[in-house]
Amino acid sequence: MLKDLILKNRSYRRFHQEKEIGEDELIEFVNLARLSPSARNAQPLKYVLVHTPEKNSIVFKYLSWAGYLSDWHGPKEGERPSAYIIMVNDTSISSNFFSDNGIASQSILLGAVEKGYGGCIIGSVERLQLQRELDIPTHLKIVQVIALGVPKEEVVIEELDKDYKYWRDLKEVHHVPKRNIHDIIVKI
Amino acid sequence: MLKDLILKNRSYRRFHQEKEIGEDELIEFVNLARLSPSARNAQPLKYVLVHTPEKNSIVFKYLSWAGYLSDWHGPKEGERPSAYIIMVNDTSISSNFFSDNGIASQSILLGAVEKGYGGCIIGSVERLQLQRELDIPTHLKIVQVIALGVPKEEVVIEELDKDYKYWRDLKEVHHVPKRNIHDIIVKI
Repeated sequence: MLKDLILKNRSYRRFHQEKEIGEDELIEFVNLARLSPSARNAQPLKYVLVHTPEKNSIVFKYLSWAGYLSDWHGPKEGERPSAYIIMVNDTSISSNFFSDNGIASQSILLGAVEKGYGGCIIGSVERLQLQRELDIPTHLKIVQVIALGVPKEEVVIEELDKDYKYWRDLKEVHHVPKRNIHDIIVKI
Repeated sequence: MLKDLILKNRSYRRFHQEKEIGEDELIEFVNLARLSPSARNAQPLKYVLVHTPEKNSIVFKYLSWAGYLSDWHGPKEGERPSAYIIMVNDTSISSNFFSDNGIASQSILLGAVEKGYGGCIIGSVERLQLQRELDIPTHLKIVQVIALGVPKEEVVIEELDKDYKYWRDLKEVHHVPKRNIHDIIVKI
């Protein structure tokens, strides 16, 4: 059931780095994004696939991780993502991708979860430097990066009381407070 | 499999209007959005559920349909959506919802498809008028509307040759040209 996939699809930031993800699998995930809705059907998003240790380490340099965990500066060597999908906007098609990036990300992540992987959408990216170092043509603008791997951490949902910041307990379990369903439905 | 759901999740614009969608089902779909990723975990999106004939007709007035089908001004009475989920941004939490709207829409639509429904994300909305007529509080800004129902049209994917505009043939089948997977993967 979809709900099981959605529940398993937590934002994971620590991985079994040694477990590789092949290019074919990444293409399969992008294909799910391809088949998902696109505003005005323009489909201006494209994807750079990264899964070799050398390129992975380039991407990793330009990402920031989990802003609320101020003592933690991202996964250590051995727990880093095995692959990345860099989502880019082909501005020669259209510079306005509306909500296509969110739609595509969700399709990609649910597809990855179904195959036993997990990941995290990263919006805090040093885009220009990453673009330059990977030689991504300039008409393609980096939108966001999806980090992927086999998760090596426990992430639990809890009821949001006052603060929506996620946090990590002493056992390194990552807690994510979610608003109650009744708090997000607007009665009119 | 997720891919089957994603393939079934076409953008539908004509429905069996008489087939109702209950509030419980709409809540179930919103719950899938609730459990999906939110940037910085802020969760600033909320949802207005509309499923009565009276309110449906109010929402319908303020929507524009299928921009490329210039001869078609939206579904006729009897083929209109049975329900709507109006996604709003609670600006008292944060005015920046990043790509949460796309993520949430995809979860909602896939959930609806799994239950035998289908729908369409509508971005062309007369927001202020709709907000006023439904008495939606002003700190909640309408982001987009998801129309839902039991689909009453055939939508087919075809290979994109030159033009990405969707079109309808003489048998009223809706054709959606999708880019080839090789055209959306950027080689670096």
